[in-house]
Amino acid sequence: MTTAPSAGTPVAAPRGYADHKPDHLARLHRIEGQVRGLTRMVDDDRYCVDVLTQITAATHALQEVALGLLDDHIRHCVQEAVRADQDTGETKYAELTIALRRTLRL
Amino acid sequence: MTTAPSAGTPVAAPRGYADHKPDHLARLHRIEGQVRGLTRMVDDDRYCVDVLTQITAATHALQEVALGLLDDHIRHCVQEAVRADQDTGETKYAELTIALRRTLRL
Amino acid sequence: MTTAPSAGTPVAAPRGYADHKPDHLARLHRIEGQVRGLTRMVDDDRYCVDVLTQITAATHALQEVALGLLDDHIRHCVQEAVRADQDTGETKYAELTIALRRTLRL
Amino acid sequence: MTTAPSAGTPVAAPRGYADHKPDHLARLHRIEGQVRGLTRMVDDDRYCVDVLTQITAATHALQEVALGLLDDHIRHCVQEAVRADQDTGETKYAELTIALRRTLRL
Repeated sequence: MTTAPSAGTPVAAPRGYADHKPDHLARLHRIEGQVRGLTRMVDDDRYCVDVLTQITAATHALQEVALGLLDDHIRHCVQEAVRADQDTGETKYAELTIALRRTLRL
Repeated sequence: MTTAPSAGTPVAAPRGYADHKPDHLARLHRIEGQVRGLTRMVDDDRYCVDVLTQITAATHALQEVALGLLDDHIRHCVQEAVRADQDTGETKYAELTIALRRTLRL
Repeated sequence: MTTAPSAGTPVAAPRGYADHKPDHLARLHRIEGQVRGLTRMVDDDRYCVDVLTQITAATHALQEVALGLLDDHIRHCVQEAVRADQDTGETKYAELTIALRRTLRL
Repeated sequence: MTTAPSAGTPVAAPRGYADHKPDHLARLHRIEGQVRGLTRMVDDDRYCVDVLTQITAATHALQEVALGLLDDHIRHCVQEAVRADQDTGETKYAELTIALRRTLRL
């Protein structure tokens, strides 16, 4: 399923989420369907509250993918960096803080 | 841009969001693109933190649509129900509370 | 339980939340206790994950108060403004949008 | 500032957040003040939207403490567990996932 990285993509090595890649892709495909469904609901003048309910479901599903990626990232990428040397570890930790802050919408 | 409601769609009357329907549709189309982009990023083994950043952007964009719909809903659907009679108004307020609770993820 | 407004408090008229004021105060007192408990937990070197669990509970409780206030505000303050005249209603709706945006952390 | 752990407190060893304990305590003291201020605002019948603004500020401040604790926890507790042995590490990772899920309100 992997396609060649587009020009400019820095690297296409296996990532921290390699083991769960099929899960993440399956979830994202479902979310794509949810968002297409949302467009259809608004296009069909469906009731606002029903559209809101579906938006909440899609948002929740996206946050589940975020949680899965954070999980994989901490277990693999951060862990490998910490094992490599202290500076690399420190850089990864600092980057993780920023990613957590963003995911928590702070 | 409006299509005939698909069979089974209960009703296709103009909704509280009628005036902003093109905006909501434009935003949802952009979000569809963002989610397709996310799938591509995971498929291309892009770096977890970059994927997380895009998930945050898509989540934020979905919540903006939710805010817009809530806004329209309160100004129009709720307002009309309140004007109609007290019972109808009360029912709409109770429904709004549930929608707000869900949108706030409580 | 009402105390005289401190000097500089612009007004102390009954608010949209007048009917639920005792509930809101009871919840806020409980939250005060929760936050004091958090301080004690950190002071006592309690386990990070246990502290995090209590922070989530306090955050959730605060958001419940926010939901209750939003509810009261929409049913009373916004409704009265809409009934008064169109301009006053419009101003209240615009203010509500900002409050919702903030509460949704957008 | 450390007090003896109350009876029943399982342990009072230095925690992952030991280095930032004064910061966390200072933030929590400020949040206690914010929540007391909220109680006062409601007691004084202050305007709903102003109360909501302060609730948002207190919620944000609590989430900042949560982020700080997560950060410390990942850098210290999780890291030590991973270094100790694989099973201990695995247990800590599983616990972290639950804590992250709760903090993200999923």
